[in-house]
Amino acid sequence: MTTNMRREIAEQPAALRDTLSALLPRIDEIKALGDQTRQLLFIARGTSDNAAVYGRYLAEVHAGRLATLASPSVATTYKRKIDLDGVLAVALSQSGRTEEIVETLTWAKDCGARTVAITNGGEDAPLAQAADLALVTRAGAELAVPATKTYTTQLAALAVLGLGLGADVDRADLDRVPDEVEKLIAAPGDVDAIAEGLSGVPGVVVSGRGMAFSTALELALKLKEACYLHAMGLSYADLLHGPIAVVDEDTPAILVAAGEGPTLPGTIALAERVRGAGAAAYAVGGGTELAAASTNALAGPDLPEWLAPLGLIVPGQLLTEALARRLGIDPDAPRGLNKVTQTD
Amino acid sequence: MTTNMRREIAEQPAALRDTLSALLPRIDEIKALGDQTRQLLFIARGTSDNAAVYGRYLAEVHAGRLATLASPSVATTYKRKIDLDGVLAVALSQSGRTEEIVETLTWAKDCGARTVAITNGGEDAPLAQAADLALVTRAGAELAVPATKTYTTQLAALAVLGLGLGADVDRADLDRVPDEVEKLIAAPGDVDAIAEGLSGVPGVVVSGRGMAFSTALELALKLKEACYLHAMGLSYADLLHGPIAVVDEDTPAILVAAGEGPTLPGTIALAERVRGAGAAAYAVGGGTELAAASTNALAGPDLPEWLAPLGLIVPGQLLTEALARRLGIDPDAPRGLNKVTQTD
Repeated sequence: MTTNMRREIAEQPAALRDTLSALLPRIDEIKALGDQTRQLLFIARGTSDNAAVYGRYLAEVHAGRLATLASPSVATTYKRKIDLDGVLAVALSQSGRTEEIVETLTWAKDCGARTVAITNGGEDAPLAQAADLALVTRAGAELAVPATKTYTTQLAALAVLGLGLGADVDRADLDRVPDEVEKLIAAPGDVDAIAEGLSGVPGVVVSGRGMAFSTALELALKLKEACYLHAMGLSYADLLHGPIAVVDEDTPAILVAAGEGPTLPGTIALAERVRGAGAAAYAVGGGTELAAASTNALAGPDLPEWLAPLGLIVPGQLLTEALARRLGIDPDAPRGLNKVTQTD
Repeated sequence: MTTNMRREIAEQPAALRDTLSALLPRIDEIKALGDQTRQLLFIARGTSDNAAVYGRYLAEVHAGRLATLASPSVATTYKRKIDLDGVLAVALSQSGRTEEIVETLTWAKDCGARTVAITNGGEDAPLAQAADLALVTRAGAELAVPATKTYTTQLAALAVLGLGLGADVDRADLDRVPDEVEKLIAAPGDVDAIAEGLSGVPGVVVSGRGMAFSTALELALKLKEACYLHAMGLSYADLLHGPIAVVDEDTPAILVAAGEGPTLPGTIALAERVRGAGAAAYAVGGGTELAAASTNALAGPDLPEWLAPLGLIVPGQLLTEALARRLGIDPDAPRGLNKVTQTD
């Protein structure tokens, strides 16, 4: 039986094409908001928060704008006004109906921010209605609780946002993303071997840095929600500041990296350190050098570093789905979770 | 045998008194920097990053200033300049010698920020030398690898920073902190019972929200580094967006809260949900109501919410030390870690 999750992973190339077609014409509107602001504040939870981490690095590294993540409780629980003049607040919610996110975006507007919504919930979703500009992704209905195509289309929307903010990247590379994702789905590599290596372990560390940090966080969340695995997503620097102590022969690490870029050498060194501690190191992306330093590896996309996260998560999604089935879990409906999470 | 960690936990009341005496006279200097800036950007890793989360909430909730955490790799790996005019960059490092943190603070200054260093490394530490203003904590030498007194004195420095930035709190409450910490150490409650409950579990979730979120992160880090426990520190909203799936009868939760404040009702509701999933819920702080909703509880300090984190971590430190010894681990020297962590 094919799970909804597996089917929705496969729908990503089409979802990405549709989303890019819909959003690339909005670049001038983004630019107008960018010209009125100097920094970004992302508002999100869960998978959307991991997408925001991508947006954050893209804005800082490639558009030279300070970009950080909001603490929604300041708005919703403490109800404290702060000065957000000059801030572009970008809220992400797949459903566009999570009250906490809608309330925090409204708060940001009241505090003086300009506002953008990124949602798969349509133009009528409360989040889209609340924002100055709505970037509506075209992933279609997503039935599995673990988000896949709504996540990668959020990343596509953030890539478009980055272009609108003047990122120093080659826009033409974006057109190659759907095909690269299609290739990863068609030839995913030996996912089952790594799923076997992760069966029965008490936990796993998932690490990446810079642009790939978002992928590490998202893969760790997928493994938590669909496989009930104690998966810690950490930047490689944070890992060395304490959590490295949990890595032993029973705790493998999954290391995520683009095939190029300044964070790759550190990721390779981390793979060597993990294996030196007697643990398995599984690579996702990072090219032949990271693969050579690792116990086992899944290929990443042939994309520049700024776009690599749109493909890097795909082998991780396939791994999550395969591991859940191996563990006897229905990945479409993990315990304790609903499709739309309501938090206040 | 008394471990260094246990001894250093006990030294916190004196360390806090010395630090407050040294730093409270600096409030006018902080105010001068605050008047030149409108928002904060914290730069830190590991335990210091958890302290920064406290500083962040204090600045936003009580001083009405946007406060966020920097991504050091933007400075150190990508070497990208961004506009930090109007930003007060606050770097925290116990040693004051972690190159990544010194380099990122220097980058912030080059980008136009005003700068503060919070360090236990003395006025001569490179981080103190690099900053416009150095707030040097007086914890004395710390020998155990897991930071205890250097962490709580960082929190004290951040509380003083908040006062300098005009936080709407009662400064006199700060004077009560050392005595409250002393009481928690003298009468810690049944730490051994909870340590027994945590022995042999595959992982634990540590959750708190708002001002107490920093404590949840720090306790999770302590349990990872000194007990090799897969401990996930999460805000309670983030927990509900996915990771709640890992909570089952084998995965207890530790819930941290001040004895008052707007996040307490949600924390009590979470304790009930965790127990409803068949898991044990251990409370730290949160008063009689949270204790009643939990399997077992350790009392927190009698302090207002804005200062509660300075005491709330203390039962967690005692629990970590007791659990490490129970597991046969020397908490003073966990595997894989050194006292000064160098990352680039």
